Amino acid sequence: MNPTTNKIPVAIVGASGYTGIELIKMLLNHPIFEIAYVATSEGGMKIEALHPALTDIFTCNVEKADAGVIAERAQLAFLALPHQASMGFAKLLLERGVKVVDLSADYRLKLETYEAHYCPHSDKEHLGEAVYGLPELYREQIAKARLVANPGCYPTATILGLAPFTRFIDERFPIFIDAKSGVSGAGKSCTSTTHFVSINENLFAYKALSHRHEPEIHEKLLMQSNKSFDVNFVPHLLPLTRGEMIDAYMLVHESFDPLEVAREFYRNDPFVRIFDQSVDLKSCAGTNFCDIHAKIKGNKLYVNSAVDNIMRGASSQALVNANLMYGLDEALGVPRIAYVP
Amino acid sequence: MNPTTNKIPVAIVGASGYTGIELIKMLLNHPIFEIAYVATSEGGMKIEALHPALTDIFTCNVEKADAGVIAERAQLAFLALPHQASMGFAKLLLERGVKVVDLSADYRLKLETYEAHYCPHSDKEHLGEAVYGLPELYREQIAKARLVANPGCYPTATILGLAPFTRFIDERFPIFIDAKSGVSGAGKSCTSTTHFVSINENLFAYKALSHRHEPEIHEKLLMQSNKSFDVNFVPHLLPLTRGEMIDAYMLVHESFDPLEVAREFYRNDPFVRIFDQSVDLKSCAGTNFCDIHAKIKGNKLYVNSAVDNIMRGASSQALVNANLMYGLDEALGVPRIAYVP
Amino acid sequence: MNPTTNKIPVAIVGASGYTGIELIKMLLNHPIFEIAYVATSEGGMKIEALHPALTDIFTCNVEKADAGVIAERAQLAFLALPHQASMGFAKLLLERGVKVVDLSADYRLKLETYEAHYCPHSDKEHLGEAVYGLPELYREQIAKARLVANPGCYPTATILGLAPFTRFIDERFPIFIDAKSGVSGAGKSCTSTTHFVSINENLFAYKALSHRHEPEIHEKLLMQSNKSFDVNFVPHLLPLTRGEMIDAYMLVHESFDPLEVAREFYRNDPFVRIFDQSVDLKSCAGTNFCDIHAKIKGNKLYVNSAVDNIMRGASSQALVNANLMYGLDEALGVPRIAYVP
Amino acid sequence: MNPTTNKIPVAIVGASGYTGIELIKMLLNHPIFEIAYVATSEGGMKIEALHPALTDIFTCNVEKADAGVIAERAQLAFLALPHQASMGFAKLLLERGVKVVDLSADYRLKLETYEAHYCPHSDKEHLGEAVYGLPELYREQIAKARLVANPGCYPTATILGLAPFTRFIDERFPIFIDAKSGVSGAGKSCTSTTHFVSINENLFAYKALSHRHEPEIHEKLLMQSNKSFDVNFVPHLLPLTRGEMIDAYMLVHESFDPLEVAREFYRNDPFVRIFDQSVDLKSCAGTNFCDIHAKIKGNKLYVNSAVDNIMRGASSQALVNANLMYGLDEALGVPRIAYVP
Repeated sequence: MNPTTNKIPVAIVGASGYTGIELIKMLLNHPIFEIAYVATSEGGMKIEALHPALTDIFTCNVEKADAGVIAERAQLAFLALPHQASMGFAKLLLERGVKVVDLSADYRLKLETYEAHYCPHSDKEHLGEAVYGLPELYREQIAKARLVANPGCYPTATILGLAPFTRFIDERFPIFIDAKSGVSGAGKSCTSTTHFVSINENLFAYKALSHRHEPEIHEKLLMQSNKSFDVNFVPHLLPLTRGEMIDAYMLVHESFDPLEVAREFYRNDPFVRIFDQSVDLKSCAGTNFCDIHAKIKGNKLYVNSAVDNIMRGASSQALVNANLMYGLDEALGVPRIAYVP
Repeated sequence: MNPTTNKIPVAIVGASGYTGIELIKMLLNHPIFEIAYVATSEGGMKIEALHPALTDIFTCNVEKADAGVIAERAQLAFLALPHQASMGFAKLLLERGVKVVDLSADYRLKLETYEAHYCPHSDKEHLGEAVYGLPELYREQIAKARLVANPGCYPTATILGLAPFTRFIDERFPIFIDAKSGVSGAGKSCTSTTHFVSINENLFAYKALSHRHEPEIHEKLLMQSNKSFDVNFVPHLLPLTRGEMIDAYMLVHESFDPLEVAREFYRNDPFVRIFDQSVDLKSCAGTNFCDIHAKIKGNKLYVNSAVDNIMRGASSQALVNANLMYGLDEALGVPRIAYVP
Repeated sequence: MNPTTNKIPVAIVGASGYTGIELIKMLLNHPIFEIAYVATSEGGMKIEALHPALTDIFTCNVEKADAGVIAERAQLAFLALPHQASMGFAKLLLERGVKVVDLSADYRLKLETYEAHYCPHSDKEHLGEAVYGLPELYREQIAKARLVANPGCYPTATILGLAPFTRFIDERFPIFIDAKSGVSGAGKSCTSTTHFVSINENLFAYKALSHRHEPEIHEKLLMQSNKSFDVNFVPHLLPLTRGEMIDAYMLVHESFDPLEVAREFYRNDPFVRIFDQSVDLKSCAGTNFCDIHAKIKGNKLYVNSAVDNIMRGASSQALVNANLMYGLDEALGVPRIAYVP
Repeated sequence: MNPTTNKIPVAIVGASGYTGIELIKMLLNHPIFEIAYVATSEGGMKIEALHPALTDIFTCNVEKADAGVIAERAQLAFLALPHQASMGFAKLLLERGVKVVDLSADYRLKLETYEAHYCPHSDKEHLGEAVYGLPELYREQIAKARLVANPGCYPTATILGLAPFTRFIDERFPIFIDAKSGVSGAGKSCTSTTHFVSINENLFAYKALSHRHEPEIHEKLLMQSNKSFDVNFVPHLLPLTRGEMIDAYMLVHESFDPLEVAREFYRNDPFVRIFDQSVDLKSCAGTNFCDIHAKIKGNKLYVNSAVDNIMRGASSQALVNANLMYGLDEALGVPRIAYVP
C-alpha cells in the first residue's frame, strides 16, 4: 500500500505494445491500483512519446525494466512481454516478493505441453504454482495466487464459449473451431502481414490446424471437463483493429436448450453475456465481456462467442485477475461500456 | 448475330445492382457478345446515371424491362433480378426464343427444395430443363442448355471446394461450413445491416444454420456425389466490399494428399487454382477464379476456398455459362487478373 | 435533485441515434446526473433493443417523447432530435421549467442566418436567450443559461482551431476549410450514401461550398473576433466511423509562433490539446478533446484540428455544457481516454 | 521488335512493389509490348512468389537487375526504383540504347530543384533531355523522347486539375492544396506508419507544407503557365488502399464557368473526365482516368480531382508514355474500367 495515496502500487513491464496501453488506460481510473512503474525493454522516453493519446492525461518516465527497482516500488507487476522473456523476468520478481500477472504464454501450460509447442522452460520452479487466469473457472485459485498466467485470447473466447457445454459434447468426434481476430492480435511489430495493404479488403487463415493456442484449448478443456477433446483450430486475420470471434462446431450426446444452459452456467458472472441472436464484435469492443450465443440442430452444437482480443483476451482479464488477487471486486475499474458506434 | 457487327446481341435485365455493373464491365470488352439492351424494373435513365464509373466509357438508355423488346433485340438475356421476379420474366423470354442465364435462385433447385425454402414456383414448365451453371461440373450440359441457373455465391465456393473430396468424405458425420462474405453480397439496398457503421470494424454471423444456400449445397453435393451429406452452414458478413471465403470441416474415410487430389480433379479447368498455402480474398478479387487450399489431419479434412462473390459468385460465372452456351471458349472475355494490391 | 439518490435527473430525447447512445454511455457513470427518462419519436421498446451493447448494463423503457412527463421527471433534457423537431420540443420543455441542451441546429444561429439556411423558426421567443455551447469561448454564459445550443461538429473543430489566431488572420482574404468526417456524422439512417459499399475504399466531398455549417462558422468567428471572414467550407466523408479533421488555410498579417499562441490561448482549458506535430483522429476518438496543430509559412497559416465528431462534436460537449449549467466541474464524467489502439 | 512475336520487348526493373505489379498486370494483355525481362534488386525467385495473384496466369524468373542483359533483351525499360538508385541505372540503359520510362523522381525536376530537395544528381548528362511524362501537356515531346520522367502521383492529380485554370488564377495569392492518398502510395515497406492499426479508422497529415511534391508542382505549373505560383501542399494518408484526391483552393482574376473551361481544355484527351459533381476515388480506381470537378464562388476557385495513385499516379501513366514513345495509340492496353463496386 502506498502510504500517501492508500493505493496499491503496480508495475507495467512491456508498456510499448497494445496490451500495455490498455493496462495504462484502465489503471489511470482504478480506485485501488496505481501505476508506480512503467517499463519497456529499452526505456528512456516519456510514456506519451510511445502513446500520443496519453498527451496531457498521464506522463511518466518509461524505464528499462529492472526487477530490483520494481520490487522497491510495486507490489504487483503486469508482464506484457514476449514468451520466453517473460519467464526470465517473472522469476526475478517472484523471488523478490512481487506478485505477477503474466500476459505471455510462459505459465499457461503444463511443462510438457509448453516445451512441445514453445521452447525449453527456464522457470520450472514457479510453473507449478501458476494459476490459469480465467476468472469464471478459477476465481478462488486466482484469489490465492501470487502468479497468474493470463490466458491466450483465442483460448479465452473458446473455453468460455464451450465450458457450459462440455458435459454434453461427444468427445468421440472432433471440435472444429473457426476463429477470426482483428489485427491488434498480431501485435505492434511491422511485418508484411500487418501492412495495411496486406490486410485491408482481405481475409486469410494462418497456421491452420497448427496454431499454439490449439494445445492450450485442449489442455484447459481437459482440465475443466476431464474430457480429452480433439480440438481443431483455424484462425483468420480480419481487416479490423479490435475484436475476436469464435465459431465452434461439434456433436453432442443429447438435446438441450443451449441458451438456458449457458445462462445457468454463468448466472453469477458479471462479464459473460448470453445473447439470443448471433454475437458481434462491436458490442463488446473496449470491454471485458465475453458474449456468447449458441444453437443446437439435431446432434450438432454451434457456439458463437466474441471478445475484445486486447481486453478480455489480454489486458482487462489481467486486471480482473489482479483485482481477485487482492480480494477486490473483480469488476473494479474494468470496462463494461463498449466502443459503439 | 448482329449482321453489322458480327456479334451476338445480349440483354442485361436488372442492371442497377452490383451484378449488373459487373456484367456490363465484362461485356464492354467481350469479343463476341455485345450489349444490345439494358433494363431495370423502372427504366428511364442513362446507364452512367446508375453507374458513374461508366462516364465517358459507355452510354445507353436503361429501359423498363420488356420481354417482347428483348426478343427483338437480343439472343440471350442475363437476368439479375430478385428471385420470384426472375422466373416470371425468364418464362416470357424462353417462350420468345431468348436464351437465359438466370442469376437468381429460381431455377437452381428441384421443385420441392425450391418451394420448401423460397416460394411457390410459377414456371414449373422450364424448371425441368434448367442446367445448374457450375462449369467445372456441368460443362457439357450447359453447352446444350437454353436456360442456365447460375449458382449461388456460397454454393459455388463450397461445392468447388468439396467436389474433389466427396468420395473421401464420411457422410455419417456432418460437414460444417463457416463462410465469410463481403458486403456486396448483401446487395445494393440500404438497410440497417448494410449501413457503413453497422459493418465497419465489426463481424457477425447471420442466418446461422438456416441460410437458403444450405439446401442448395446439400442438393448439389448429392447430385455430384450421390451422397446425402449433413450440411451445416453458417455465413458471416465481413467489413469489406468484395470477396468470399469458405472454411469447411469434415471427416474422411481414409488419408490422402488433398492438394494432389484437387489438382488432378481440376487439371483441365482454367478457373480453379490450387494453393499450397491458405487462400486469401485479394488474390482472386475481380476475377473468375476459385482458389482452393486443403489440409488433412488424421481423419479430419479442412477445405479453404475463396471467390469474388460478385464475379465467380455471380457475374463472371454467368459469362462463362453464356460462352459455353454459344460454343465459345469458356474463358473468352472473363477476367483472370486480380484487383491487387 | 432526486431525493433518494442525491442526483440530478436528466432526460434524453432522441435516444436511438449515435449521439443518443453516447449520452447514455457517459451518463451511466456520471456522479451527479442520472438518466431519468429516455425517449424516441416512437417509444415502445427497451433501450437494449435499440443498442444491444447495453445488454446487462443498463435497461429502461424507451418512451414516446412527452414534454409534460419530462417536466415531472427531469430537470434538464438533452435533445438529440432533427432540426425543426427540436425547437418545437424545446419550447415546451422551457415553458415547463426544464433546462435544455439542444444538439440540433435550431438555436445555434441568429434568426436571419437560421431562416436563410434552414427553415422558418417557430420558437423565436427562446432563440434570443440561447447560448452557443462552446465552453472554451462561452463558459460563463453557459453557466447561467437554461437553453444551450450545442455547436455543430464542423464548427466546433473549426472555431476551436481558429479562435487563437483570429486576431492575426487577414480578413481581406478567404479562409479555406477542408474538412473530413467519419460516417457516424451522416447519422444512422440508411441511404445510398451511408451504404457500406458506397463509403468503403472511397472518398468524396459533399455540399462543397454550400454546407450549412459554413454560415455557422462565419457567424461564430464574427462573434468571437468581430471580423467578418470569408469562410469557404468543403467537407468530405471518410471511410471510417468516428472522427473529424479540419485543415484550414488562410493568410495572416504578421508572423508569430502558432503553437505558443495556441497554448497560451487554451492554457486553462482541460479539453484542448496543442500538438507539436500533425493531429490524428485516433488519439482523440471517444473523448471530448479537440487536438490542434498549426504551422506558419511566410504569411500563410495552416491549422489542423481533430475531434471525435459524435463526442466533442456532439454528445460529450453537450455533457460539458450540462455540467457548467449546474455549476459542476466541466470535466465531470467526460471521457479523456481515447479509443486506442 | 521480337521477330517471333512481332512485339516490342520491354523490361520491368523493380518488380516487387505496387507499381511493378500494376505494370505486369497491364503488359500481360498489351497487344504490342511484351514482358521480356523482370528484375528486382535481389532477383532469384519466380514472379508469382512475389505476387501470388499471378499464380497460373504468368510466370517468369525474377532476375537481379543488369543493364547489359536488359539491353540484349528489351527495347524499353520501366524503372520502378527508389530515387537515386534510378538515375544510376537509367544512365547505363540509355548508354546502351534502351529507352527509359523512369517512375522515380530522378529526372522530373530541373537540376537545382532536384538537388535542393533530393540529393546530388549523378546523371546530369541525361537530365537535360528527359521529358516530363504528363501526356495531356507534353504529348509531342514524349513521342520523341528516349527518357521520360513519369510525374509524381500528387503532381499528376494537381497539375491536371489546375492546368485548365492557370490563366485565370491570381498568382499574387497562394494556392492551397489539400491532398489525400491511399496507403499504397506509401509503398510496400512495413513501417509503424503503414501498420494496419496505425492507419485503420485514422487520418493524419504528413510532411505538411514540406513534401517534395510541392516544388514539383510549382515547377511544372510554372512550365505550363509561365506563372510562379505560391504552392502550399498538405498531404494526408487515408485508411484505404488505392486512390488519391486533390482539393485545391485559390483566387481567380475573373469569373468563368470552370466545367466548360475544363471540358474545352481536355476535349481531345481520352483519360480526363470532367464531372458535374464532386469526384470520388472508386470511379477511377484501377484506371488511368483523372476525374476533375471544379466550382467557382465569387473570386474563389475550388478544384477537386481524383486519380488512382498507383495507376494514373504511376504505372498506367508510364504505359501511356511508353505507347506514345513508340507512336502507338496512347490508350492501347490502358485500363478505363474502374474497380467498382
